[in-house]
This record gives sequence, C-alpha cells and structure tokens, in this order.
Amino acid sequence: MPLLTVTRRLAFNAAHRIHNPGLSDEENERLFGKCNSPNWHGHNYTLEVSVTGEPDPVSGYVIDLAEVKRIVERTLLDRVDHRNFNLDVAEMTGTNPTSENIILMFWRVLEPALRPRTLSRLRLCETENNWVEYDGR
Amino acid sequence: MPLLTVTRRLAFNAAHRIHNPGLSDEENERLFGKCNSPNWHGHNYTLEVSVTGEPDPVSGYVIDLAEVKRIVERTLLDRVDHRNFNLDVAEMTGTNPTSENIILMFWRVLEPALRPRTLSRLRLCETENNWVEYDGR
Amino acid sequence: MPLLTVTRRLAFNAAHRIHNPGLSDEENERLFGKCNSPNWHGHNYTLEVSVTGEPDPVSGYVIDLAEVKRIVERTLLDRVDHRNFNLDVAEMTGTNPTSENIILMFWRVLEPALRPRTLSRLRLCETENNWVEYDGR
Amino acid sequence: MPLLTVTRRLAFNAAHRIHNPGLSDEENERLFGKCNSPNWHGHNYTLEVSVTGEPDPVSGYVIDLAEVKRIVERTLLDRVDHRNFNLDVAEMTGTNPTSENIILMFWRVLEPALRPRTLSRLRLCETENNWVEYDGR
Amino acid sequence: MPLLTVTRRLAFNAAHRIHNPGLSDEENERLFGKCNSPNWHGHNYTLEVSVTGEPDPVSGYVIDLAEVKRIVERTLLDRVDHRNFNLDVAEMTGTNPTSENIILMFWRVLEPALRPRTLSRLRLCETENNWVEYDGR
Amino acid sequence: MPLLTVTRRLAFNAAHRIHNPGLSDEENERLFGKCNSPNWHGHNYTLEVSVTGEPDPVSGYVIDLAEVKRIVERTLLDRVDHRNFNLDVAEMTGTNPTSENIILMFWRVLEPALRPRTLSRLRLCETENNWVEYDGR
Repeated sequence: MPLLTVTRRLAFNAAHRIHNPGLSDEENERLFGKCNSPNWHGHNYTLEVSVTGEPDPVSGYVIDLAEVKRIVERTLLDRVDHRNFNLDVAEMTGTNPTSENIILMFWRVLEPALRPRTLSRLRLCETENNWVEYDGR
Repeated sequence: MPLLTVTRRLAFNAAHRIHNPGLSDEENERLFGKCNSPNWHGHNYTLEVSVTGEPDPVSGYVIDLAEVKRIVERTLLDRVDHRNFNLDVAEMTGTNPTSENIILMFWRVLEPALRPRTLSRLRLCETENNWVEYDGR
Repeated sequence: MPLLTVTRRLAFNAAHRIHNPGLSDEENERLFGKCNSPNWHGHNYTLEVSVTGEPDPVSGYVIDLAEVKRIVERTLLDRVDHRNFNLDVAEMTGTNPTSENIILMFWRVLEPALRPRTLSRLRLCETENNWVEYDGR
Repeated sequence: MPLLTVTRRLAFNAAHRIHNPGLSDEENERLFGKCNSPNWHGHNYTLEVSVTGEPDPVSGYVIDLAEVKRIVERTLLDRVDHRNFNLDVAEMTGTNPTSENIILMFWRVLEPALRPRTLSRLRLCETENNWVEYDGR
Repeated sequence: MPLLTVTRRLAFNAAHRIHNPGLSDEENERLFGKCNSPNWHGHNYTLEVSVTGEPDPVSGYVIDLAEVKRIVERTLLDRVDHRNFNLDVAEMTGTNPTSENIILMFWRVLEPALRPRTLSRLRLCETENNWVEYDGR
Repeated sequence: MPLLTVTRRLAFNAAHRIHNPGLSDEENERLFGKCNSPNWHGHNYTLEVSVTGEPDPVSGYVIDLAEVKRIVERTLLDRVDHRNFNLDVAEMTGTNPTSENIILMFWRVLEPALRPRTLSRLRLCETENNWVEYDGR
C-alpha cells in the first residue's frame, strides 16, 4: 500500500521576545539584538502539519484535513493565537521562544493529539524568509 | 556524481466532488460535508513534478524542464485541465477523487512517461492550505 | 476627516462553465473553448471586499473587518462556496457565470448588506493570472 | 509629460494590542475580542509606499526606489520594527493602534520626508487577508 | 451599463542595465550603483494588463482574457522575453531601461493593439518589492 | 537531542545565458532554445539555505539566521547579485550556468563557510515554476 503525506497549513498571530531568562540583560541584547526588544514584537506565523499514512479505502483520505484543522486549533492554536509566547503559553514558561523551541513544544502537543495517525513533519514559518522544520527525530 | 532534484510547477483547473459511489448519499454527506456538494465544486490545482538524477555533462540539465512540461501536459493535463475528475477522466472512474487518489493516478501516468529519468516526488496542491505529496513508496 | 479604504480578502471554491444558454452548443464552444467544457471545471476564487470611510473615533476602525467577513459569508459565500454557479446560485440563473457577471451579482448583494458603510470596490480573482474589479460605476 | 506611480514594498515586525484607553476593560474586550488580548500579539506587516510623478529625464526614475527605502527606514521603520505600537512609538501614545490609525501616523511622517516628491498612496497589510489604503484625502 | 476592469497577468524574463548613454561611466555608477553593473543583470518581470469596459451582452466578457494574452505576446512579449532591454528591443534604443521607461514603451505598443477596447492600466513588477503603474495620463 | 532544520531565504538578481562553450552555436540553440538568447536574460533568483542541528541550549537557536544571512551574502551573494553568471563569477568560468551547475557551485562555497554547522539542503528557484534542490549527496 502506498504511503502518502498530507499537509494542512494554518495561520496565527502572536507576540514574543527572544530572551534567555538565565542570562543578563546585556548578554541577551548582545546575543539577540532587536529580537530581544523589551516590549515584544510579533509575527504572522504559519504552521504546516503533515500526516503520513495509507489512504483509507472507504474515505480515500489519509486523514480528513478538516479534522487536522480542528485538532490543531483545539489542542494548540486556541491557546497561542493572539497571545504572547513568553507570558501566556504554559508550556513555554522559562523557555526562550525561538522558532526551534516553539516547534518542539508544538510537536509534544500534536504528536499524541493526532494518534493513531502519524504526525510526520511540522514546519513553522516566522516570516516568508525564516522557518524551521522538525520530523520527530 | 552528485544527485540533484529539479522541479516543474504546473497549474490546471478542474471540478470534482468527494463521493464514494459505494456508500449511501447520507453516508457520503456525513463523511464529506460540503466537499460532497452534488453539483460539484472546483479548484485551481498546482502540481509539482520532481525528477532526480545527475546533471548531463553536455546540457548541464538533470532534465530540460521544458520537456517535463511537455510530457506532463501531453500525457496528463490535456485530459484533466478544465474537466471533471468524477465524470471526464477515464482512470478515475469509480474512484473517489480525493487528492490522495488523484496523486496516485498521476504517479501511474507520469512515472513511466518520464523514463528513463526518475520521477522522485509529486506534490498536488488543492488550495494554498491543503496539499498531498507522494514519492512512489 | 481622512477617508481610508479597508479590505478583507476571502476565499471560496466553486464550479462553473462559461456558457450562454441563448447560443447553440457549437457557438458556445467556438466562443469559450475549454472554459465551455460540458462537465464543469472550477476555481479557488478569492474575493477582496473594500469599504471606504472615516475611522470611527471610538473603535479606530472604518469597519471591523471581522464584521465584514461575517456579513460576506452570511449573505453571499455560504450560498456560493463549494457550489456550482450555473446550477446552484439563484441570482445566476440564466446568466453566463463569467467573472464579470459574478462580480456584478456580488455587488448587488453586498452593497446593501454593508450599509450604512460604503462598499467602494470588489476584486474577484479566478486565478493568480486573471481577475476583475468593480467600483459600482 | 506622463505621470507614473512607483511603489516600494517594505516589511517590518511589530507587536500591538487593539485597545482604547478611554474605555473600560470590559468595553475593550467586547469591541475588540481577541485583538484586545492583554499581553499583546503581533504581525509581519508590509508597507507599500507609492510616489507619483514624471520620470526625471536624466535618471529615468520618478524617484530612486533605493532612496525611498532609505527614507522610510530612517524616518519611520527604524523606530517601529521589532517594537510595540502601544508602548514604544511616540506618535501613537494614547492612540488605539488599529491599521487605520497606524497608516495615518505613517502618512504624517512620510509625506513631508519624501518632499519635493509626491507621496500618493500608502498600503499597510496586517495579514495577507487584511489591509488598509490611504491616499492623503 | 456598469464599467468593469479585467486584468491579465503575464510573466517574462529579461536582462538589462540601468545606464544613461549620455552620461560618463563614473556618473552612471554614482547614480545607479549595482543596477549599472556592466555585464547586465535580470529579472522575472510580471506585467498586469487591465482593460476597462462594459461586459459584452453575448459573451459576458469585457474582453476575452485569452485574447489579451495572445495580443500582448504577439505584439510585445515575443520580442522582449529572454532578451536584453538595452541591446535587443528596438523601441528602447538609446533609452535607459528603467521600469518607468519600459512601461511607457509598453503602453505605446499595447494601447493601439488592444483597440477598440480601452487599455486602462499597466503594472510592471521588477521584483516583489518594486513596481510601476501607468494609466495613460 | 532533537535535530531541527532551519532555513533562511535570500533573493538576488542576475543575468545568464544557457550556453555550452564546447558546442557550436547551432547545437546550443537547438538544445537550449530561447534560454540560449545571445544577449543574456535574467532572473529574480531565490536561494533557500538550510542548516540542520540541535538547538544550542544557551541561545535556543540551531544557528542564528541573521548569521546565515551575513555568511551567505559575504561569501557568495556579494559576488553574484546584479552580475552575469557567464562573465562575472569566477567559479563559473567555462561552465554552463544551468540551475544545476549554479547550485553545485553554491554548495562548494557555502558548505565550508557554514562549518562547524551542517549545511543540509539548498534550494535555488529560477522562477516560481522552476527550481532545483541539492543535499550534498
């Protein structure tokens, strides 16, 4: 049976500040420059959620992408959209909200939420020029 | 010798209806919602066709992407563009035209048509938020 | 007081066939080519709805674009999305569903629905290479 | 002599909160919903700056768009990029940072900064689905 | 009768060098910087061609956009695509190929070629961040 | 420790001509058609540079993408942007500047320049419909 990968793209808006609370303010500014600006900045993030599997013989779907959308919104985006990653998102407390750390948190939420389907890849775009990918390894 | 992957993106417009002819109308509507709307809907599909190989020492090309375009149009898109996947495309008869089933049919047409070059990946986008990928496995 | 124009972009998917029912089949095919294909084709349409006015001194909005979205969906897109312009949309009965005729119908629905705000422009994109604009004149 | 309009698109990232400080918290939440979220959210804004005029017979330019970029960055974006519109931007103090109020502030900065050239239009996009335009009237 | 504006977007690739042959090399380099680089550079240009008129009562079209495409390719793009604006395009001889001068030349070709339809606007994009518009005035 | 892939997209403009200097003019024209046009044409190229690794526990970054941008510009794009691949770029002398040959040259420059980080993938887009990918194998 063939293995296909289906992807749903979703958008959300959030604020953040690249800041390691274990470092001094000077060190943070030296490392992160304008991304460390104290009163936050923000992004129109896009998140691509990929599920890999065989198409179901009845539905013809690997998974209904409308269901992917519902799961991602209910378990993740409803708590993240129009929020501040440093202040509002429980799983990010004490963590520097780089795209790398955000996507790892997203994987920890979405991988079990999508079972028994197989989450195979996440892509998180901060801008049209910067993004991060993770496949669970 | 290095292995490179070159890709040609093509666009086409088609109508379809997500419908499993082996199920009742009620079951189809329950499973597929508005995508089962009886009088069809449609999409501006985009198809990305990837070929992997070593560059030819004379041409510098893995394959001339203008040739990829001609092959894909002649063997596939000329029969699909501005058509109805449920009614007009012979290979889809009796098959529910989900993106998953469409891309598998496309692979069966394009993989032999591109030989001796190696078709390595197809990506079919139904909208800017939904797509499917297949690499032949 | 300054006049600003705010715009909300919305997407929908529909099927249609360019066909003038007052002409013969041969004449339709001669005039419209593959766009006259009998079993329909479809598009990922995008619609841009622009409202012009002064910003409200309390809200700072010309109009809340979330309200524009709700009005456009309730009065128009809920009847058009995942439907067939030739068969399913009452206002298009007997009308050739070119982008020009569709946008005029959309204006007749949206201009009164948005009052007392001023609908100033619609843009309807059939593909990324073809679109039509109307400003009510 | 013909009149041409040239446009430079620029991007910046900022945080904001839609909030009228003259209203109660309850009224702000009722009017602005998730856009009033207390700990800010943010956007990848894009700004399009249009200048209208006759091409210079020596340079062939209405205005060198590299000069437009420098002027917009120096007079405006260096103070706005990676900042918070409610807290960090002097001209927005006490003003609700809707796109409408932001674009009017931008016009007041850029119109004199671009003289003797004629700023003819600004477009500010908050997301790919929402934007505002202003032409100085 | 309503007036609608329909637009066809077309793409082409060309080389050019911003250079005023009436100035010294030093003056050209001072004015135009890297855009004056002696061995040319190039762009994926996009051209948007807009025609304004009433929809034809038989076809429902202001103008068939497939016809616009044919006219623009035959009268203009076939001589410009994959060419050098400074060396290969007769109408540009001795003219500095800024976007402003290119769009004026395009207007002089397309306005008569599209008669009796009314060419109402051209937009020529050099990159996704730079473009010029002209409406014949 | 998880392995993440971060990507920075960069844009540049260049001219080229698909031409194998070891073949006759007739053979070049037969093989490459309009891409062999003698006076060059050009593109708005985009380059995506991907680095794979574990996030640094102090910065939270696999690599600071601002540093990727600086390295790619300093070692590569400053010599390529607004230039001619056939005439101006030392590493391409005598090489047919197909996208395949360009990306292999880019890899040879960027892989050592990014060490000790791991360059894992390059994607070079000639147009929105044509691109090439390489992962070092």
